Amino acid sequence: MDISFRKATEKDLEKIVALLADDMLGAARERYEYPLPESYKNAFNAIQSDPNNELIVACIDTEVVGVQQITFTPFLTYQGGWRATIEGVRTSASVRGEGIGTKLIQWAIQRAKERGCHLIQLTTDKQRRDAQRFYEQLGFQATHEGMKLKL
Amino acid sequence: MDISFRKATEKDLEKIVALLADDMLGAARERYEYPLPESYKNAFNAIQSDPNNELIVACIDTEVVGVQQITFTPFLTYQGGWRATIEGVRTSASVRGEGIGTKLIQWAIQRAKERGCHLIQLTTDKQRRDAQRFYEQLGFQATHEGMKLKL
Repeated sequence: MDISFRKATEKDLEKIVALLADDMLGAARERYEYPLPESYKNAFNAIQSDPNNELIVACIDTEVVGVQQITFTPFLTYQGGWRATIEGVRTSASVRGEGIGTKLIQWAIQRAKERGCHLIQLTTDKQRRDAQRFYEQLGFQATHEGMKLKL
Repeated sequence: MDISFRKATEKDLEKIVALLADDMLGAARERYEYPLPESYKNAFNAIQSDPNNELIVACIDTEVVGVQQITFTPFLTYQGGWRATIEGVRTSASVRGEGIGTKLIQWAIQRAKERGCHLIQLTTDKQRRDAQRFYEQLGFQATHEGMKLKL
């Protein structure tokens, strides 16, 4: 199985939203319909025009089977260290269990190193019972509480 | 007590690093010395030149007594919603217990609304036992695990 990674293009957007919507929590949050709500295109354009955000797709041949967003942020803490934050990691149900998620995160870790980050981080909903174990196997530690407030 | 908030300038940098270093966890992580390590200036410049990052100081008269960084990020999730992330919140020991931290976070919540964010989030180290309660009183919920991997 030959898997490759690349930056997403606007042609991938429908497939990406389909992946986000085909998810335990995403099903209630997303609107996967035709035409796609304009808000997705606006966010896509904002991501693409920001050098500190990368939307990455995993492909088998030409088929998009996974997605993740990586944000690079300069902080003053840790003597002015950059961090990478992973968000919106999804893989296609058609390839689940084939290690695509692992390869996505490993790709993000490598990319974060290339960008000079000293830390890579993410938050995972406590309702996603398997996710924490998945990330722990990749070396992440649940050292922090992830706190959110809806506005 | 008249408290005001503004974007940090380079003249505030030494005082900000002093606040970051005068902290249970920051003491071992930071290098508050003269001259400041160049890495702090580099990170400060990167933050200032990024329209999606704001370093905010709280002042009483002209004295800096608190700091926080707010990062605004466009995501595809939640139908292409923007989020605000708070990091590096510190208040001066000289004013602790006077509600400066609460006012800082309330300011960040207001700023996130102005920027059109649907969510404001942060992670807090599980070793900071009082912090989770502090943020819960401000309306945050610890719905997520905050996972980190040092690179």
